[in-house]
Amino acid sequence: MTPSFIVVEGLEGAGKSSVIALIQSFLEQKGHSVTCTREPGGTPMAEAIRECVKHDWDEFVTQETELLLMYAARSQLVQNVVQPALERGDWVIGDRHDMSSKAYQGGGRGVPLSDLEALKQITIGQFEPDLVLYLDVEPSVGLERARGRGELDRIELSGIQFFEKARAMYKQLVAESTKAIEISAMQAMDEVQAEVIRNLNEWYLRMASETKVGMG
Amino acid sequence: MTPSFIVVEGLEGAGKSSVIALIQSFLEQKGHSVTCTREPGGTPMAEAIRECVKHDWDEFVTQETELLLMYAARSQLVQNVVQPALERGDWVIGDRHDMSSKAYQGGGRGVPLSDLEALKQITIGQFEPDLVLYLDVEPSVGLERARGRGELDRIELSGIQFFEKARAMYKQLVAESTKAIEISAMQAMDEVQAEVIRNLNEWYLRMASETKVGMG
Repeated sequence: MTPSFIVVEGLEGAGKSSVIALIQSFLEQKGHSVTCTREPGGTPMAEAIRECVKHDWDEFVTQETELLLMYAARSQLVQNVVQPALERGDWVIGDRHDMSSKAYQGGGRGVPLSDLEALKQITIGQFEPDLVLYLDVEPSVGLERARGRGELDRIELSGIQFFEKARAMYKQLVAESTKAIEISAMQAMDEVQAEVIRNLNEWYLRMASETKVGMG
Repeated sequence: MTPSFIVVEGLEGAGKSSVIALIQSFLEQKGHSVTCTREPGGTPMAEAIRECVKHDWDEFVTQETELLLMYAARSQLVQNVVQPALERGDWVIGDRHDMSSKAYQGGGRGVPLSDLEALKQITIGQFEPDLVLYLDVEPSVGLERARGRGELDRIELSGIQFFEKARAMYKQLVAESTKAIEISAMQAMDEVQAEVIRNLNEWYLRMASETKVGMG
């Protein structure tokens, strides 16, 4: 089978980390080597850019700056890690990717999707994940979970409405995509995991059969 | 008079610093407060982005990453320093601005000008300098001067052809612009300075008379 790039998306507290561990285990049981990445970050330079984005600057950070730094980090990650991993035969699992920019900067902050699409084309062109698993959670629930872990800080300052708008954009993008699957992360963790495995397994079997057909 | 944003452009070793000092002195003698900026940089966050661009990373830095970091820094500088300075009545002198990206990344590295223009529109929109003084120097001469100052290092690795292409783009952009003036920096320094003052004075008198007309 051709190695794939699988991305897990969702708001804070949606449970991405557990789902990523589950997907990694699923793929390794199938005999695949797996590379895990996260965005923004995943290379030394991209992690430095991540620090730059997350730092509490004593100056106003424009939404355009935030946006360009996200795509700069993405360009480094895709060209230096994701594509080389796929080329050497690894499967790649991404903790966030392009859909996060569209949800947070597009939906949340109101940056026109045409600007986001222009930045995507400039940086990574036609490159796309093969599968996106979007874990849907109500912001109030997700933020409460993240708060319990002692995270959030600067993010919380954006307020619940920001996350409501990001969630609405996530749901719209998933509905429009042929590569994305929405899974409710409002269920108990074992139910979320069962639904992830069921969807992943179906998708995997379909990919495997298409590869066989392709190989004639 | 309405405060203006004056930008000095040119290759390494063109003599930008001396010319900037000269313009600052000219404007201060006219009674204006002057703010000097440099790109990339000029705000704490933009300087951190500059460090990120210039650092010798142990990974390939994509030209898209370099480009987005330049425009991220520019967005911070224009919105947090240049525009507020102009609004409070300061005149602003910029050591490099948008034309540098078009010359180096566009001309030098071959990034399509349409990508550069898209990034400009996303980050700073219609914002433009009121005057650009482009100091034209042959790369071999400019690099020799910069080498004498112990600069260059990573830049030199780009090779003379990179600078030849950047220079050709600079000359094309200046020829197409109504706001830019080309001054030969191949002359002796006192001749360069005399030509800068002559051009600056002509431009200043024209601006002053237009302001008077505008004020009826």
